[in-house]
Amino acid sequence: MSVTSDIKDPSLAGLGNERIAWAGREMPVLELIAGRFEKEKPFKGIRIAACLHVTSETANLALTLKAGGADLVLCGSNPLSTQDDVAAALAAGGIPTHAIKGEDDKTYYKHIISAIDHKPQLTVDDGADLVTTLHTKRTELLKDVIGGTEETTTGVIRLRAMAAAGELKYPLIAVNDAKTKYLFDNRYGTGQSTFDGITRATNILWAGKKVVVAGYGWCGHGVAMRARGMGAYVIVTEVEPVRALEAVMDGFAVMPMHEAAKVGDVFITVTGDKHVIAAADFAVMKNGAILANSGHFNVEIDIPALEAAAKSKRTVKPFVEEFVMADGRKIYLLGEGRLINLAAAEGHPASVMDMSFANQALGLEYLVKNRGNLSPGVYSMPADIDGDVAALKLKSLGVNIDVLTPEQQKYLSSWQEGT
Amino acid sequence: MSVTSDIKDPSLAGLGNERIAWAGREMPVLELIAGRFEKEKPFKGIRIAACLHVTSETANLALTLKAGGADLVLCGSNPLSTQDDVAAALAAGGIPTHAIKGEDDKTYYKHIISAIDHKPQLTVDDGADLVTTLHTKRTELLKDVIGGTEETTTGVIRLRAMAAAGELKYPLIAVNDAKTKYLFDNRYGTGQSTFDGITRATNILWAGKKVVVAGYGWCGHGVAMRARGMGAYVIVTEVEPVRALEAVMDGFAVMPMHEAAKVGDVFITVTGDKHVIAAADFAVMKNGAILANSGHFNVEIDIPALEAAAKSKRTVKPFVEEFVMADGRKIYLLGEGRLINLAAAEGHPASVMDMSFANQALGLEYLVKNRGNLSPGVYSMPADIDGDVAALKLKSLGVNIDVLTPEQQKYLSSWQEGT
Amino acid sequence: MSVTSDIKDPSLAGLGNERIAWAGREMPVLELIAGRFEKEKPFKGIRIAACLHVTSETANLALTLKAGGADLVLCGSNPLSTQDDVAAALAAGGIPTHAIKGEDDKTYYKHIISAIDHKPQLTVDDGADLVTTLHTKRTELLKDVIGGTEETTTGVIRLRAMAAAGELKYPLIAVNDAKTKYLFDNRYGTGQSTFDGITRATNILWAGKKVVVAGYGWCGHGVAMRARGMGAYVIVTEVEPVRALEAVMDGFAVMPMHEAAKVGDVFITVTGDKHVIAAADFAVMKNGAILANSGHFNVEIDIPALEAAAKSKRTVKPFVEEFVMADGRKIYLLGEGRLINLAAAEGHPASVMDMSFANQALGLEYLVKNRGNLSPGVYSMPADIDGDVAALKLKSLGVNIDVLTPEQQKYLSSWQEGT
Amino acid sequence: MSVTSDIKDPSLAGLGNERIAWAGREMPVLELIAGRFEKEKPFKGIRIAACLHVTSETANLALTLKAGGADLVLCGSNPLSTQDDVAAALAAGGIPTHAIKGEDDKTYYKHIISAIDHKPQLTVDDGADLVTTLHTKRTELLKDVIGGTEETTTGVIRLRAMAAAGELKYPLIAVNDAKTKYLFDNRYGTGQSTFDGITRATNILWAGKKVVVAGYGWCGHGVAMRARGMGAYVIVTEVEPVRALEAVMDGFAVMPMHEAAKVGDVFITVTGDKHVIAAADFAVMKNGAILANSGHFNVEIDIPALEAAAKSKRTVKPFVEEFVMADGRKIYLLGEGRLINLAAAEGHPASVMDMSFANQALGLEYLVKNRGNLSPGVYSMPADIDGDVAALKLKSLGVNIDVLTPEQQKYLSSWQEGT
Repeated sequence: MSVTSDIKDPSLAGLGNERIAWAGREMPVLELIAGRFEKEKPFKGIRIAACLHVTSETANLALTLKAGGADLVLCGSNPLSTQDDVAAALAAGGIPTHAIKGEDDKTYYKHIISAIDHKPQLTVDDGADLVTTLHTKRTELLKDVIGGTEETTTGVIRLRAMAAAGELKYPLIAVNDAKTKYLFDNRYGTGQSTFDGITRATNILWAGKKVVVAGYGWCGHGVAMRARGMGAYVIVTEVEPVRALEAVMDGFAVMPMHEAAKVGDVFITVTGDKHVIAAADFAVMKNGAILANSGHFNVEIDIPALEAAAKSKRTVKPFVEEFVMADGRKIYLLGEGRLINLAAAEGHPASVMDMSFANQALGLEYLVKNRGNLSPGVYSMPADIDGDVAALKLKSLGVNIDVLTPEQQKYLSSWQEGT
Repeated sequence: MSVTSDIKDPSLAGLGNERIAWAGREMPVLELIAGRFEKEKPFKGIRIAACLHVTSETANLALTLKAGGADLVLCGSNPLSTQDDVAAALAAGGIPTHAIKGEDDKTYYKHIISAIDHKPQLTVDDGADLVTTLHTKRTELLKDVIGGTEETTTGVIRLRAMAAAGELKYPLIAVNDAKTKYLFDNRYGTGQSTFDGITRATNILWAGKKVVVAGYGWCGHGVAMRARGMGAYVIVTEVEPVRALEAVMDGFAVMPMHEAAKVGDVFITVTGDKHVIAAADFAVMKNGAILANSGHFNVEIDIPALEAAAKSKRTVKPFVEEFVMADGRKIYLLGEGRLINLAAAEGHPASVMDMSFANQALGLEYLVKNRGNLSPGVYSMPADIDGDVAALKLKSLGVNIDVLTPEQQKYLSSWQEGT
Repeated sequence: MSVTSDIKDPSLAGLGNERIAWAGREMPVLELIAGRFEKEKPFKGIRIAACLHVTSETANLALTLKAGGADLVLCGSNPLSTQDDVAAALAAGGIPTHAIKGEDDKTYYKHIISAIDHKPQLTVDDGADLVTTLHTKRTELLKDVIGGTEETTTGVIRLRAMAAAGELKYPLIAVNDAKTKYLFDNRYGTGQSTFDGITRATNILWAGKKVVVAGYGWCGHGVAMRARGMGAYVIVTEVEPVRALEAVMDGFAVMPMHEAAKVGDVFITVTGDKHVIAAADFAVMKNGAILANSGHFNVEIDIPALEAAAKSKRTVKPFVEEFVMADGRKIYLLGEGRLINLAAAEGHPASVMDMSFANQALGLEYLVKNRGNLSPGVYSMPADIDGDVAALKLKSLGVNIDVLTPEQQKYLSSWQEGT
Repeated sequence: MSVTSDIKDPSLAGLGNERIAWAGREMPVLELIAGRFEKEKPFKGIRIAACLHVTSETANLALTLKAGGADLVLCGSNPLSTQDDVAAALAAGGIPTHAIKGEDDKTYYKHIISAIDHKPQLTVDDGADLVTTLHTKRTELLKDVIGGTEETTTGVIRLRAMAAAGELKYPLIAVNDAKTKYLFDNRYGTGQSTFDGITRATNILWAGKKVVVAGYGWCGHGVAMRARGMGAYVIVTEVEPVRALEAVMDGFAVMPMHEAAKVGDVFITVTGDKHVIAAADFAVMKNGAILANSGHFNVEIDIPALEAAAKSKRTVKPFVEEFVMADGRKIYLLGEGRLINLAAAEGHPASVMDMSFANQALGLEYLVKNRGNLSPGVYSMPADIDGDVAALKLKSLGVNIDVLTPEQQKYLSSWQEGT
């Protein structure tokens, strides 16, 4: 069993605690839940392994679970997304943490194994690396797992593929599919933080820039909306006709990536798929094109193809690599193609993570309460939990809304009253 | 069997044909389908009764069904939404039509009965007045019905209530639930045409107006988005926490209707529910407040309560009634509280109706093809039809999009590849 | 002296009065001024000829001037912009009015001459047709003119050209250059009413349409802003680099008209210049392209060139002419290329005209007060009048703002206090 | 004469050079000018003292002036705005630089004196601290000054006050008043970088935040526009009626600061005036309110009053000070109330500074060319320079625009052609 942490620098704990407290200011829903957990101890004696971006917001979730009695370990869900000060604070606070910003892939998986060695009864995942590793490298531990939660679109896609193949061995709740998650985190969170990341890395002016957004799912909606909000000229690429049509009707230019590649100044991928920007596209890009990814994995931009096509490569400033192509054009890749909001900025703002992580905390509680009643598979968040999170969030914001009158409720459930 | 029409003025047929042709310009998907129907005659010998807003777009659907061999009759789905010139053109063109703009409720239902007397094998409905009348007044005809389609949110809510009560006697396809319907028609269609209607009725400046949008479903999204796009200050009211939170995060003011009532200049209801603006709200409105409804039925504003509270009432210009309250304040009700886009303007633009009606046409064809295989109940549009409509629409707009490579398809269906 | 009116139909007076009253609801600033004029009679015995769009808003100005004691006659400032019911109401109310919607150019100028025959001491103009006619056809009357006002950009450009050529014979106030005019009327007024006009004429869906806006002055800003607000994809054309750069930074596509001509769905001209869309552009337009003008004169689109290139032309619905080109493409011209908001809709909303016409009324009063002190030339609106109009408008909207403290005033006028 | 630099750390020069080169990528207009200056040496032998924010963009201006032969020294124009790595790079590159991030006021003025000791013949200012110091502490040097330029609104206000008082002793060009400066730098530059600064300092979610923007000049337009673009609910405060009315018509909430103080989550001042947020406002703010300034001087928020009202104060994270009020509410002041975009982020993006500094470079050249011909006073940028900058910028962005035809030019200068 893992009892120690593997972090960058324990001396950063003080700074980490400050940032955790600052994030906590904007996480009132999670705070309410933590208060209840403190009394009810729903996770008393239960081992949890969480594979998440180790940020100040995640720390607030970790503290909430611990308040609920959990025996928790934490590992990072992306090699570039760890905030080392937060990791130090968590480790100092008694939550074994395995995550170092900039770790290589080998260390990354070593850290996941460390978390798995904790013999988790509950798993918390963001991208499904923990679940898939558990299902392939430590199958002997699967029998003790009560269930797990998954945070992100990409992870849910992987889990559904596992379930379809009959290879998923315990129940998993798709936190991502909660409305209070994907409508907010994916859209407003990704939308804002993607621009934060790219701006910190490059300090470019957005007004008038030609920004190519690959993918018009909820993340793409958010990114395109914010790009326009910053004054950019937005081009959307898609593979799905309904979404493409939505982008057209939202007033964006819509075209295949290979056409967009010729005119774009900045490219942002949020598709959840692989090689969305590929060799043929690099070949026609303008000198000075900037590439960033905000999808979960660093596969959306075909980086090996970019490296193969370039005659040289160097880091010109933090998070900015310059690739000089054979014909002299320069293409800039940000944050190694990893999710730019976590690589070059601080990830999603706490206020959206408040809702996502409220769902996580309540989803885990739900799994414990329904222990033994759920067969392996991917489950949606129970709708009433979803609604509760929204109602608590509104309350924390001081927003009041209407309530259906009995007359209105009756009207909605009847069909006799017409014109 | 109904063989004659009941319309306002047959001499308007020429004008109606012009407007039908003009709308047809923006309905290329329906035109493609009509071309195929012309050859394949999927409705050969089948009796169809359609209860729809009798507009130039609906006429294009009617002609498409007729091209497919249907024996079709038409009645209006709202007393104020009929375009009399279009009705005249359809009647002249051999489609029995029962609809007169401004007809009273008695005539309205008489027209529905006329359509039902056609002994339909397929029903097409917009608000479910035809289906509910058939289920209550002409139950002996139910056994011959193959199935039907329903166009709008309100109608689908009614049908689901009927199904839940075990009272729905044949299969109905919820056209409204097709993405190519609700994402476009409800949002971009209602959004634009609501303002068109109110502007034609009042010619008010939208910039700086305080516009209260009741309901933040897809229609409400569209109305709020366009209100902002016209320069208004937008207040949203809701009963559902997730939607209310979305409205907050979209930057709108969110509050209960009774608070909004005190500050709003213009009120627009799109909730699908009853008495969303009620007696207590009228009592606190500002002098000069304007009320309009864009939901399906004229129940969203409690008009009887408004009339009860007013000391006098008069029509000050077409579609504008002035209610003078006991304290002298004047409140203006537009279009008798019926859907303002059809009452005071021309309804949804043809380009969105192209998609909605392509779904109608293909949904009806699907019912015929699956005759006998569908038990009574409410069905979603088959997803492949939905996708096809989007793809055809994109093509008609000259928009090309990407196609998944085999590598990308494989990636999406696998789960082994992680960080 | 003109004592009679030349209008379309006196029986429309009742309807006209209703519409004048309705517009008056949104013209509180003008109403305040009318109240004062009623008491002070600043125009007692003074003859005024006003050449304006004869709309319900203009009627409120006319009544305000009359309340101030003016001996007023009115003629239209555009052959297509007259509202015949308003003209009837004014005529019936004792203000000689010469304007008929759809009058030919000959009648148009005959009406201007009728107004000039009133021997005006003050002129009110919108486009400078009255002033230029007076300076060319009735020069003997110039000596009695105290001064005049001009409403629009185009008119001010013409007057400045006259002044530069030494041909302007009396003082004119450029009402257009008041901030409370051009920032509001040109931007929010033109922006909204242009779309109102085109929508009424065509009922097209704006979402996803490629809209080409020619000119990015204040009118162009308004049109482009509203086009985006309706969901369109906006292309801007310009001749002035600073404005073009603004359009780029506002996120719009910017290109020469000849490039835009190839991709646009709808073209809107607001440049104040001639032949902005010309023969070479028609030649490359897509089938179905729609052309509208919102600039003052019908010269922005080269209509003679369009007619020369077309093999046939017909009116397909009110305000929509179809030109069939030699190669079969169809191009649609709206409202004969005259300002579409007045041709196909009701012109600017009353609320902006309230400010423009408050400036008109106060500008005329200023001319009388400063009679004899102003040499011929083009004058700006006095800044204090401009500020007063804004303050009154805010008050009428119930908006309070801050007032500089003495400390703040002192700070702004000092320079010693630095870092 | 100053020959040495006073900077924080010479070892940062390498990093500084990297950042200067990166900024240079987006400053193509300045690069073109530098190329010409390199050949023409317009500043050969001329001493220039520049008091500017020492950023990577300013470095590009400095290098441009040096390329033109200038004998240049540089000091900071704000104690918190210096980028120490850039200062190191400039010093190493032979441009004496006097600026340290976080310097106290005494050091700040010492650095200005060091720049003045260079006996400048041309001055470059941003906020007028250099000019006012020269006019008060080193009057003996005034006689040798050819002229100067001023970058910002605040500085121009001060210079105009000096000129009005008859105390300005040499000609100054108000670079701020060039359209290619204020329309872009003030609006798009301040708009973007203000949010960049606050986001880096706080990582708050903007969607749904109540953001109070004090001042609706060009900076305020930019800040309000971007706040909305980020999903915030925007409240504008103003003292000037026309601007307040614009804010209303742009759909923003408008109210006095004291009302806004009660509801705002984040407050941003861009007025150029003093104590815009004052003691009475702090007293009613919500717990957790965040205050930031983006105006030139740190006087817009009455910080002494805030300190007086607070019972304690501490720095909770970089650039975030927490003030605990007597009643326990916490108010957060960012970046000591100094311009937040430079305090907590990197200032304006290079692309807008390209235009501002192109104006600076060409304005200084103009002063030299017109040496002896300009009397003391504040001058506008020559319009042709302004237009040239815009045209060069468009060209660098690859944007082509239309050119007036002879026919169009003639039309604009004539007045005979009417309806």
